[in-house]
Amino acid sequence: MKRSVVILLGVILTTSVFSQKVDFDKKLKELGIELSPPTKPIANYVKAVRVGNLLFLSGHGPTKADGSNVTGKVGKDLTIEQGYEAAKLTAAGIISTLKAELGDLNKVKRVVKVNGWVNCYPDFGDQPKVINGCSDLMVALFGDKGKHARAAMGAVALPSNIAVEIEMVVEVE
Amino acid sequence: MKRSVVILLGVILTTSVFSQKVDFDKKLKELGIELSPPTKPIANYVKAVRVGNLLFLSGHGPTKADGSNVTGKVGKDLTIEQGYEAAKLTAAGIISTLKAELGDLNKVKRVVKVNGWVNCYPDFGDQPKVINGCSDLMVALFGDKGKHARAAMGAVALPSNIAVEIEMVVEVE
Amino acid sequence: MKRSVVILLGVILTTSVFSQKVDFDKKLKELGIELSPPTKPIANYVKAVRVGNLLFLSGHGPTKADGSNVTGKVGKDLTIEQGYEAAKLTAAGIISTLKAELGDLNKVKRVVKVNGWVNCYPDFGDQPKVINGCSDLMVALFGDKGKHARAAMGAVALPSNIAVEIEMVVEVE
Repeated sequence: MKRSVVILLGVILTTSVFSQKVDFDKKLKELGIELSPPTKPIANYVKAVRVGNLLFLSGHGPTKADGSNVTGKVGKDLTIEQGYEAAKLTAAGIISTLKAELGDLNKVKRVVKVNGWVNCYPDFGDQPKVINGCSDLMVALFGDKGKHARAAMGAVALPSNIAVEIEMVVEVE
Repeated sequence: MKRSVVILLGVILTTSVFSQKVDFDKKLKELGIELSPPTKPIANYVKAVRVGNLLFLSGHGPTKADGSNVTGKVGKDLTIEQGYEAAKLTAAGIISTLKAELGDLNKVKRVVKVNGWVNCYPDFGDQPKVINGCSDLMVALFGDKGKHARAAMGAVALPSNIAVEIEMVVEVE
Repeated sequence: MKRSVVILLGVILTTSVFSQKVDFDKKLKELGIELSPPTKPIANYVKAVRVGNLLFLSGHGPTKADGSNVTGKVGKDLTIEQGYEAAKLTAAGIISTLKAELGDLNKVKRVVKVNGWVNCYPDFGDQPKVINGCSDLMVALFGDKGKHARAAMGAVALPSNIAVEIEMVVEVE
């Protein structure tokens, strides 16, 4: 009898470990991230397209809660720190899109690829420090699942002069 | 007896709806798009590579029927409207490549991702209005299957000073 | 008896042809490519993420054996030829990452997509000639498996002023 209880407990424990869900609302709050509702595409496209278990996300910008954007050239109009915060804000918008697409952020299996463009002049070389604002949040939120391949580039100009634009490929359940 | 005829008709109707092929040659004509033969890669690469049901397309430019390109910085040498037309012309070239690769445009299951670079100066912020020239054609031609995730960026310079460069990921049958 | 020996020989030959492994160390040596150990990511990301049989690689730069980078704007600080060599060096770094990820370069089924950004000024239009430094090496090393879809763009600025940045998607076994 005792033995079957032990087995039962083992099964319950194993199941709960493997099906353990992260409370992402709580985790976002702990990280000080408040999600705004996902922004609407500003043209004839959609925010994300799923094919198989890959989700391709549109380029996102640093849109604030009031709908305005963080704009300007990083390294000139904005400091690297302000650029980092803009990338973090952009990442929050991407997370908002992911939540709207998937229903539950627990369906994120892996952040696969992040491409980040920093609006800047020819003499700026700290794109990685700026895009870290996105990468750091992904890893803080999703842990090992948030570790991604990445490319960071400078852009001579971005839509409506946004400071950064970030796109992402995510593996989903 | 009558009942079985109705069922038979139902089956035929259902089958024809689900296997309905679009006459893309007709649709392209209605949209005023004339396809040129696909351009040749200008270096040691190919126009498209398929892996599983994903087709990755090379960056395409706005090549005219005579082989010349639409060139210049949008917002300076070209108006936004001319940029839009350049993006539409680029999209026509991509469709030409798709047709050559797939044989039949009915094999397009979904336009997954569009990345568009607009050749411009630092003060230009209307990249989305330019890349719409591509997005609008994809949706006009493929309907819901043409709705894609997208990123639009400015580029300080593009090959041979082309006005726009667009790459695409397509889900295929 | 003789017949079964012939059949056996046939089987052995067929098997060896189909399972024939390329000696990539030898081939790299013949191509004059010396692999440095893969560089470390300069921020909170990883060099490559695999999802299914697709490997998404981070943006790589032209890092020399001593750890320094080839820097500057191509067409101004560097000639096209020097840019080509920088792209070739970047490709060698990508191959080094591939080897570290896969263990054996024979696991490369297809180089699917190459995206190359060339650090340049607004009047430069020879990005394809520069990124050929990467494409040519991929085809020289992997043969038909190395033939990829590609996009080449100009970038107003790149991390630490590197001359080129290249990312890749590879189909793997």
